[in-house]
Amino acid sequence: MFEQKRFLMIPGPTPVPESALLTLAKHPLPHRSPEFSEIFMACNAGLKKIAQTEEATPFIYAASGTGGMEAVLANLLNPGEKVLSVVNGVFSKRWADMASGFGAEVKRIEVESGKAVQPEEIEKILNDDLNKEIKLVLVTFSETSTGVGNPLKEITSIVRKHGALIAVDAITGLGAMPLKMDEWGVDVIVSGSQKGFMIPPGLSFVWAGPRALEKHKQSKFPRFYWDWSKSIKALENQTTAFTPNVSFIAALHNTLNLMLNEGVENIWQRHERLKQCTRKSIEAMGLKLFASDEDASAAITSIIPPNNVSVSDLRKKLKNDWEIVVADGQVDLKGKIFRIGHLGFVFDRDVLTALSAVSRVLEDLGHDTGTRWMKVYEETLKAHKS
Amino acid sequence: MFEQKRFLMIPGPTPVPESALLTLAKHPLPHRSPEFSEIFMACNAGLKKIAQTEEATPFIYAASGTGGMEAVLANLLNPGEKVLSVVNGVFSKRWADMASGFGAEVKRIEVESGKAVQPEEIEKILNDDLNKEIKLVLVTFSETSTGVGNPLKEITSIVRKHGALIAVDAITGLGAMPLKMDEWGVDVIVSGSQKGFMIPPGLSFVWAGPRALEKHKQSKFPRFYWDWSKSIKALENQTTAFTPNVSFIAALHNTLNLMLNEGVENIWQRHERLKQCTRKSIEAMGLKLFASDEDASAAITSIIPPNNVSVSDLRKKLKNDWEIVVADGQVDLKGKIFRIGHLGFVFDRDVLTALSAVSRVLEDLGHDTGTRWMKVYEETLKAHKS
Repeated sequence: MFEQKRFLMIPGPTPVPESALLTLAKHPLPHRSPEFSEIFMACNAGLKKIAQTEEATPFIYAASGTGGMEAVLANLLNPGEKVLSVVNGVFSKRWADMASGFGAEVKRIEVESGKAVQPEEIEKILNDDLNKEIKLVLVTFSETSTGVGNPLKEITSIVRKHGALIAVDAITGLGAMPLKMDEWGVDVIVSGSQKGFMIPPGLSFVWAGPRALEKHKQSKFPRFYWDWSKSIKALENQTTAFTPNVSFIAALHNTLNLMLNEGVENIWQRHERLKQCTRKSIEAMGLKLFASDEDASAAITSIIPPNNVSVSDLRKKLKNDWEIVVADGQVDLKGKIFRIGHLGFVFDRDVLTALSAVSRVLEDLGHDTGTRWMKVYEETLKAHKS
Repeated sequence: MFEQKRFLMIPGPTPVPESALLTLAKHPLPHRSPEFSEIFMACNAGLKKIAQTEEATPFIYAASGTGGMEAVLANLLNPGEKVLSVVNGVFSKRWADMASGFGAEVKRIEVESGKAVQPEEIEKILNDDLNKEIKLVLVTFSETSTGVGNPLKEITSIVRKHGALIAVDAITGLGAMPLKMDEWGVDVIVSGSQKGFMIPPGLSFVWAGPRALEKHKQSKFPRFYWDWSKSIKALENQTTAFTPNVSFIAALHNTLNLMLNEGVENIWQRHERLKQCTRKSIEAMGLKLFASDEDASAAITSIIPPNNVSVSDLRKKLKNDWEIVVADGQVDLKGKIFRIGHLGFVFDRDVLTALSAVSRVLEDLGHDTGTRWMKVYEETLKAHKS
């Protein structure tokens, strides 16, 4: 019975509000109907507000986030073009690999695991590119595998000076950390439904700004399902090029309203608060954080377990004793860190609950967390509630 | 209030059983969990049974049907290869266009609208291809835009003799008409969730047989999200290469169980019965059918309205007076035919309901349908219930 109490504190799927779940339980609307068009256009408008853009065009794909990443490459690249790709974890490596696979000449900036990229590193390479051969820069906003956030505003400003396009995998970061597409000059953003957007996995979102749409026109890469031009043509008739996931788009309509009612700035503040409460409490338990304060993502916190505690035991006990699911590390970080997601439909009580359970489990496994962390939690919460 | 009675008799989205809708309303499972793996593997096994295959590997994409069609091309083609494509409507034209866009040299067999392709036409072209340059034949099983079913068994047998691969868009046809992948020798099938599978749009399914998987290994087309090799590798660990639509896959698990409980042969028989009841009754109302008895699909019936009745008026009144949605014609058939879907979670009462409403609306619009169609309906039902 209590598996129905299961609580996901992973970086996705994130918890889904009841109102969105109940929307999913409705009979699907016909996709070529005025009712669906209204919902679809409201979602497009809402997505623009979340990404803080008036200039960009949003595209809603039935796809996972990786599909959205592929869509960006298929719409922007020409074979043989130079791409600069920041690699500091599993998902940023994936994007670089995809670009290579699509025939781009990819220069990678390999960043030490658990660290954010130094904007100067990007600046140096772009400054050396005197002939402006680099056409596209790929950056991951929040690297889910390590819990690191890259300094997107600074990076974008550097890329803008050079003239290349910047495309951002903000799958985990959007709706957690400040991202101002128009103000900063970001050209392309990718995100996914099962993250800050609070619905299950199944939709990917791409926002393409005017420079990206211009480059798209010259891109010869074969594409059909991902093609922006087809979607833009369909948008003129307030519809989609291909059969959309009408149920998920109706649920998205619901959660976008929840997000806009809370307010974009308030959402960012809440995630900053959840992050600070998590990090400070975890440190007060005597554990080490994987990312520094400067580099940490507001969507997910990566934690190094005490020496005498295995990640596997910790995760098992959290699930068995408390029905809380946290994430293991991925690939070479498997067993070395655990990751607590605090993204989307998560509020202060959830983080307190997760921390309490983590503390109980650590005590059971022989690590004394003490009780000071509760005081630290309270103080951090107060400091960020003002 | 009565919009909640709305009943979709369109070729997709098709009606969704309550048990599947309620599954969609559950909190999403984490995708890297034993619970999800179990559901996922059960879906793979169920999909194989529905396509009547033990040899083929199924792939479940978060995508619409068009995405699945793109996946097939991306996994099988090499630029410049010759493809033979049967075009007898909007969706078969789409696949041919996609193949052209992907750099294939596409030879099209253009079939008159409302007619099935003659297998002899395919045979002639393949016989003339002495150097076996044609590598792939694309066929649509049930052309949704016209309500025509192509004779797949005969076509497959012809293609097998030549040696090319045959890939079938069975998005609307699968689960409505007999399709025996292994026995007939079909290499690739594509379908979609919102058709015979009785869940909303959002998943596309592709089945690839051994010859297709072999050809895939030599295909140099860039791909990542669609890549079969990545999915096969993930399947070895009972998981997906990328974040799956866990909620839809859970709902699919539910509807596959419903389908397998009914039995594949029984599903085909039911659709044949729904088709016959629809066609015979419509004719008894004095209307003309767009496709002949030999060419008609069991998933959808295309009907030519009486001279004095516009499709637009008919559809409006069906929706306003009876909350039944039927489809218009598409592109050059818009306003010339209307289409009644009887695919998926549809049973005899639904067809009787739709026909009764159509009859009422036609009477209101000045066409006397008489009452003989009810007798015809009853006799047809009895004849096909045995």
